[in-house]
Amino acid sequence: MDPYRITIYCQNGGPTLFRITTTSLGCLPLVRIPAMPKTSAQARARKIRLLLFDVDGVLTDGKMYFLPQQDKTTENTQLSARGSIEFKGFHAHDGVAISLARLGGLRTGLITKRYSETVALRARDLKLEFVLQGIHDKGRAFKDTVKQAGLGLDEACFVGDDIVDLPAMRYAGLAIAVQNARAEVKRGSHYITPHAGGEGALRDAVEMILKAQGKWKKVLEAYLTEHPTVQ
Amino acid sequence: MDPYRITIYCQNGGPTLFRITTTSLGCLPLVRIPAMPKTSAQARARKIRLLLFDVDGVLTDGKMYFLPQQDKTTENTQLSARGSIEFKGFHAHDGVAISLARLGGLRTGLITKRYSETVALRARDLKLEFVLQGIHDKGRAFKDTVKQAGLGLDEACFVGDDIVDLPAMRYAGLAIAVQNARAEVKRGSHYITPHAGGEGALRDAVEMILKAQGKWKKVLEAYLTEHPTVQ
Amino acid sequence: MDPYRITIYCQNGGPTLFRITTTSLGCLPLVRIPAMPKTSAQARARKIRLLLFDVDGVLTDGKMYFLPQQDKTTENTQLSARGSIEFKGFHAHDGVAISLARLGGLRTGLITKRYSETVALRARDLKLEFVLQGIHDKGRAFKDTVKQAGLGLDEACFVGDDIVDLPAMRYAGLAIAVQNARAEVKRGSHYITPHAGGEGALRDAVEMILKAQGKWKKVLEAYLTEHPTVQ
Amino acid sequence: MDPYRITIYCQNGGPTLFRITTTSLGCLPLVRIPAMPKTSAQARARKIRLLLFDVDGVLTDGKMYFLPQQDKTTENTQLSARGSIEFKGFHAHDGVAISLARLGGLRTGLITKRYSETVALRARDLKLEFVLQGIHDKGRAFKDTVKQAGLGLDEACFVGDDIVDLPAMRYAGLAIAVQNARAEVKRGSHYITPHAGGEGALRDAVEMILKAQGKWKKVLEAYLTEHPTVQ
Repeated sequence: MDPYRITIYCQNGGPTLFRITTTSLGCLPLVRIPAMPKTSAQARARKIRLLLFDVDGVLTDGKMYFLPQQDKTTENTQLSARGSIEFKGFHAHDGVAISLARLGGLRTGLITKRYSETVALRARDLKLEFVLQGIHDKGRAFKDTVKQAGLGLDEACFVGDDIVDLPAMRYAGLAIAVQNARAEVKRGSHYITPHAGGEGALRDAVEMILKAQGKWKKVLEAYLTEHPTVQ
Repeated sequence: MDPYRITIYCQNGGPTLFRITTTSLGCLPLVRIPAMPKTSAQARARKIRLLLFDVDGVLTDGKMYFLPQQDKTTENTQLSARGSIEFKGFHAHDGVAISLARLGGLRTGLITKRYSETVALRARDLKLEFVLQGIHDKGRAFKDTVKQAGLGLDEACFVGDDIVDLPAMRYAGLAIAVQNARAEVKRGSHYITPHAGGEGALRDAVEMILKAQGKWKKVLEAYLTEHPTVQ
Repeated sequence: MDPYRITIYCQNGGPTLFRITTTSLGCLPLVRIPAMPKTSAQARARKIRLLLFDVDGVLTDGKMYFLPQQDKTTENTQLSARGSIEFKGFHAHDGVAISLARLGGLRTGLITKRYSETVALRARDLKLEFVLQGIHDKGRAFKDTVKQAGLGLDEACFVGDDIVDLPAMRYAGLAIAVQNARAEVKRGSHYITPHAGGEGALRDAVEMILKAQGKWKKVLEAYLTEHPTVQ
Repeated sequence: MDPYRITIYCQNGGPTLFRITTTSLGCLPLVRIPAMPKTSAQARARKIRLLLFDVDGVLTDGKMYFLPQQDKTTENTQLSARGSIEFKGFHAHDGVAISLARLGGLRTGLITKRYSETVALRARDLKLEFVLQGIHDKGRAFKDTVKQAGLGLDEACFVGDDIVDLPAMRYAGLAIAVQNARAEVKRGSHYITPHAGGEGALRDAVEMILKAQGKWKKVLEAYLTEHPTVQ
C-alpha cells in the first residue's frame, strides 16, 4: 500500500537516460488506492484468442487533425468530421504488432466511436478481421463481435483509453489500458501498457499476451523468417 | 517526521553506480512560497455554469501547421493565415469532455484570437454554444458572452495558456491554466490542469468542475448509458 | 566546475511535475566542461536591438513533413523540397513573442538554410522585418543583416539549434541556444532557453531580453491594452 | 568514496517539502548488470565506411499519417498505403547528419519495408546513395548492398528500431539501436543513440562513428567552411 509514487529521470551528461519509477517505503496512507489485480493479468492473458481495440488514443496519441475540404461534393455523410479530411498518426510498431498477433494465432479488430476514411484505409492495410466504426455502445459491439467470432468473453481482450471503452473492458476477459488512458480507465484495467497510445501501446499488448501464452520467442523467430508484408 | 523515504540505485552501463535517496521533510518552510488559493478553487468551481476556453495551446498543444494553398481564388479574407490551409491537432479526450460538460449542465464555448476554418469545423462537430474567433480583446468578449448567457461572472470559467487570456481569466469566477501555460498565466490562475493543452487539459478542467459540484459519478454513469455521439 | 549534470523529474501522484536540474557538488573532474559565461548573458542582452533566428528546430521542433505534390506544373525551383509540399509546426507562443518584441522595440527576422513556402507565409503573418531563406553562410548573412539594420554586432542576437548556426552565433552580441540544440551549439551559447524549439523557445528568448532590459512589465501591460493582431 | 553528492529541495505548491539526496557510490556492484560491450563499439565504429538505416522509427518517430486520396486515378500500385497519401516527419538534424557523413567519407543509404513517395522524395533531397524501399528481408538486402558497395560486412553499420531490423543488425559490423527501439532491438545492438528516432537519432549515429574515427572536429570545420546545401 503506497501513498506516493515518484518517477525520476536522471541523465548523467552522457547518452544514457534513466527512468526510475519508485514507490514510497513509508506508511502514511494519505490516499488509498486499491491494489490492482496484477497477479491475475497473466492468467487472463493465457486464454485470449481475440484482440479488440479502440483507435483514438490507443492506435494513435489521441490527436486528430482536420484539413478543411474544398471540394464538398465528394463528402460522405457517414463521416464524424463533416467538411474536412480527418487524419491522425499511426505507429509502425503497432503495424508489426498485428503481424505478430496473426503469427501467434490471435484474431484482431477495432471498435471506435468515430467514423473516418483514414481509419478504414489503415485497417485495410493492417488486414484486420473486424472493423467497427461509428459505434456508440462499445460494450454491446464487443459482446456481439466476440459471439460472431465464436468465442467466449474470457477469450477476448479489449484495449482502451477513455471512459467510452469501459463497458467493453468490463466484459473483456483481459482489459488493457494504455499508458495515456484517463484515470478511471486505468483503474478499470488488468494491465497498463508501458508505452502510450500511438507510441507502440498495441505492440505492448500483443507482446504481453504472447509472452503469457509462452509463444513470444517462437512468434519472433517466425516473423524474422517469414517476412510478413503488413506494417 | 518522515512520511516516506526512498532509495534508488541506478547504473549507467559503465562502472558508476548512483544512490538516490529521497526523503520528504514534511512542512519545513525552508523556501517560502506563497500558498496558492487551492482551497478556494473548489468553492469557485461549484458555481460554474459556463465554460469558455482558448483554442491554441488549450484545445491544442499550441502547434499550428500551414499548408501552402495552390488555389488562391477560394481564399477567405477573414482567415488569420492567408494563402495557406491552417490545421492543428485536437484530442479525443477533449471531445468527450464537451459531452460530459453538457450532461453535467455546463454550457460551453471558445474565444480565440486567430480565425481558421479548421476551428470552425471542430466547434461545429463539438456542438459548442459559443464560437468566437478573431477576438483581440478576450476580456471584453468574455464579459459580453457571460452577459449574453444570462449569467454572472462568478458563474463562468475561462481556460487559458497565454497572456492574451489573462484579461478573461481575471474576470472569470474560476481561472484555469493548462500545464503548458506561460508562467504569468499559471500565476494568474486558481487551478492548473495536470495535462497539457492538446493532451486532455480541457477534460481535466471539466472533471475538476463536475467533481467540485458533486456531479462526476452521475455524469459518468449517464455518459456510459446514453452514448452521446459527439467526440 | 561540474563533472556531472543530472535532471530529475518527480511527480507526487497529484498534478504537479517537478523538473530539477542539478549539478554535482563534488570534485572529480572526470570530464572538463568550460564554464558558460552565464553571468554576462544579462549584460549582453541589455544591448540587443535586433533579434535574428533560425527556423527548423528553433521556430519548430525540427520536424519537416513532405506531402507528395501531384500537380508538378506549379513547382517552384527555388524550393528545398522539390516535388512535394513542405510543412512544419509553429507555436502560438512564438507568434505572441514577435508582438512582444515589437512592443519592446526589438526588430526581428529569420535566417534559414532551407527555402519553403510555408515559412514565407508564416513570416508574412508574423510581419518579420528580415526574411532570409536559402542561406548557406549564416555568419555572413547575419553580419550583412546587422549592417543593413544600421546596428553593431553587439546589438544583435541570434537564436540557433544546429552547427550551421554557430558562425552567426559567434558574431552575435548575444548567442542563444534552444533547449533541443545539439551539444556544440549549447556550448557555443550565452543562454539556453528553458523550452525546446517549436514549444516556445523564441518566446523564452524575447522574454529574457526584455527582462534584462527592464522592459518586461511595461511591454506586458502594453500588449494587454493594445491587443496586437499578430499571433 | 563519494565523487559527488547532491541535495535538492522541492515543494509541490502545498505544504509538503521533499529532500532528494543523490550520492554516487563509485563502483559498488550492488546490482549486477552485465557490462554492455561499449568498449568494442568504438573499435567497431572505426572500421565503418557505409551507414545504412531504417526509416520509420529511425529517420522518423515511427508515426505515419495517411491522407485519404480523392483522385484515385494517379494511384501507384507499389505504395504500401493504397488509396491515401502517406507522410511522416523528418528532422533537420538528420539532414545535416547526411552532409556530415559525406564530409567524413561515409557512404549512406536506407533500407525500409514500406514503400512511400514521401520517403523517395526525402531520399532524393538528402542525395542518399542507396534507397531500398519495399524490402521484406532486410538481412539479405543489407548483405547485397554492402557487397554492391565493394565493402566487407565489418565496414557497414545498420541503424534500426524494430525486430524486422535485427537480421541486418546481426550482419552489421556496427549495430545501432535508436533510443525508442523495442527492447529486443536494443539488446541486439552495440550502441544506443541518446536521441529517439525523428529527433536526431541518425545524427547521433553519425557523430558517434566520426568521433570514433577521430574525424569529428575536422568534419565540423569543413561543414562550417564549405556550407553544404543538403539539409
